[in-house]
Amino acid sequence: MIERDDLAAWLRLLETPAIGRETARRLLAAFGSPHAIFDAPPVALKELLTAEKASALRSPPPSLDALIEATWQWLAAGEQRHVVALGDPAYPRALLETADPPLLIHAIGRIALLNVPSVAVVGSRNPTPQGAENARAFATALSHAGLTVVSGLALGIDGSAHDGALAGPGSTIAVVGTGLDRVYPKRHLKLAHRIARDGLMVSEYALGTPPLAAHFPLRNRLIAGLARGTLVVEAALESGSLITARLALEAGREIFAIPGSIHAPQSRGCHALIKQGAKLVDSAVDILEELRFDMPEGAPLAASTPSKEDPVLAALGHDPVTLDALSARIGWPPAELSARLLELELSGDVARLPGQLFQRLVQA
Amino acid sequence: MIERDDLAAWLRLLETPAIGRETARRLLAAFGSPHAIFDAPPVALKELLTAEKASALRSPPPSLDALIEATWQWLAAGEQRHVVALGDPAYPRALLETADPPLLIHAIGRIALLNVPSVAVVGSRNPTPQGAENARAFATALSHAGLTVVSGLALGIDGSAHDGALAGPGSTIAVVGTGLDRVYPKRHLKLAHRIARDGLMVSEYALGTPPLAAHFPLRNRLIAGLARGTLVVEAALESGSLITARLALEAGREIFAIPGSIHAPQSRGCHALIKQGAKLVDSAVDILEELRFDMPEGAPLAASTPSKEDPVLAALGHDPVTLDALSARIGWPPAELSARLLELELSGDVARLPGQLFQRLVQA
Repeated sequence: MIERDDLAAWLRLLETPAIGRETARRLLAAFGSPHAIFDAPPVALKELLTAEKASALRSPPPSLDALIEATWQWLAAGEQRHVVALGDPAYPRALLETADPPLLIHAIGRIALLNVPSVAVVGSRNPTPQGAENARAFATALSHAGLTVVSGLALGIDGSAHDGALAGPGSTIAVVGTGLDRVYPKRHLKLAHRIARDGLMVSEYALGTPPLAAHFPLRNRLIAGLARGTLVVEAALESGSLITARLALEAGREIFAIPGSIHAPQSRGCHALIKQGAKLVDSAVDILEELRFDMPEGAPLAASTPSKEDPVLAALGHDPVTLDALSARIGWPPAELSARLLELELSGDVARLPGQLFQRLVQA
Repeated sequence: MIERDDLAAWLRLLETPAIGRETARRLLAAFGSPHAIFDAPPVALKELLTAEKASALRSPPPSLDALIEATWQWLAAGEQRHVVALGDPAYPRALLETADPPLLIHAIGRIALLNVPSVAVVGSRNPTPQGAENARAFATALSHAGLTVVSGLALGIDGSAHDGALAGPGSTIAVVGTGLDRVYPKRHLKLAHRIARDGLMVSEYALGTPPLAAHFPLRNRLIAGLARGTLVVEAALESGSLITARLALEAGREIFAIPGSIHAPQSRGCHALIKQGAKLVDSAVDILEELRFDMPEGAPLAASTPSKEDPVLAALGHDPVTLDALSARIGWPPAELSARLLELELSGDVARLPGQLFQRLVQA
């Protein structure tokens, strides 16, 4: 538990606009703590800082006291609320291996999750229904394998990933780009509360920080940095998920991508990543093998296993297929096949498209 | 043009059951020609062969004379019919770099195609409609780029690949597992005749050879061996296309694979190949770049280029999507989007699925 005067010194260091994280880390390395930085004689600071920065450090921003008080009240309002500083035993070791570790982390929930093995699951805010389902199924499978799922609480893939992780026995971390007294997007308010209770909400931003566009790519470095590997489920070219993947690569972590149709814009980012060396995964087992994690027996694998299921469903592709082609594929007479397809249509497993085409709808 | 007595000696060497291709190549290396092998004194053969094989070589099989006569008549029946032996100037140089080059090639069509740059396009006999369309579109694009498309005349991907290649300015080679006086499968009789006229039909099997299961994997080594690279369009696990890909790898050629849904059995083989190092391709340009071939300006690329096309189609995924998700994705009001979707449905570009889902249908 952080002391009030330590919290005050950390916030003062972070809230001094002229001092960036890199300068702050340099000062911390030289003086040992924020207190020591502020107690240092001007001559000692001069050696490390420009006159301008040294002067900025001497005058706390006017809003600082209110922020300290608000943060202190926020911490006091619940046992599960934490502020973890660089050097704190609870600080995530995985972030220490990255190029730009945050100085202070706000968190609500199970703080121990900061130091358990995790995998990031990220992707498009506008996924296909199948993409969202894949995110959920992979997250559940990873959760079963004992891996915590890290994501960004965004709409689409992120939300499905958190949800899927909580559906399994494991947990999830949401790294957000706002202060922890706010929830963005609003549509995920309920999900954020579930994560705060059963998982962990994390932010490096001070309370009250609104959703600023510039924060989201920075937030992505924490998602990538916390996790042993990053799975991109669906992503367009030039999307934020590709930034997360690049940051994971820079942090020396594994990158995984789920392939899809070459005609789907939501798969292009994943295909680009695979071309650049990301590992193609078609089952959560691929991720576990790469990370040397074992899958418990009987746990879901997050991919269809056609040998064990309905032969018609197994033979139906993801693309629309004609009755004749399907009949040729599985060797059933068309009449029999037609009857079975009707059953599958009624059970919601198959869709009938114009032109006597049939398509499988894959659900969890 | 092969001489009748040379043809007779080659066929006698090939038709001697105890002498396999490897022994035959060893004998040819020692004696220089089939004639010289049969003229060699028994003592010279003894050094290279077991007594049993040497004895087999002295007694031509009873059916040999009929085969020689039939092959000679077959050759005489058309200018485009060829028998090309190892060492012949028309023999494909690409096959000489492989572990097991055929000794004699029967061919009908444009014999010069044996020595032009080519790419193999292979895959499932039971593809999805989209898979067949992808095979056709990639083959047409390769044809435009000046590459000849090699495949195996099988139903499904092979047929679409030949067809797509002939639709472009380039050509195609069908390597078959039967004698060239037969067509298998029968359904491709018309296609085989088109290829014999505008491309090249190739077989290493003697006239009259029926479609034997054992010949097809062997035939695949010629498909892989003729081509600079092999593209697997769709393939189940444990399929013949994966054998072709392995043979291409052994011959030091490039392997390309088109990804698809992780739930599609027809994509599993492609995904397995990509995991093993095959190059993921989502456009023919990927293949041309790898083979250092230029794409002529204005030629089709065999993959959608969303930036140039209808924004609604570009944003519609390959998986079903809701009106709301699509509206959020492209920023159109639902009413306007709904009207446009109806138009696209009527033009056959979009299918409306149960549950207000929309899906793109991609055609050439």
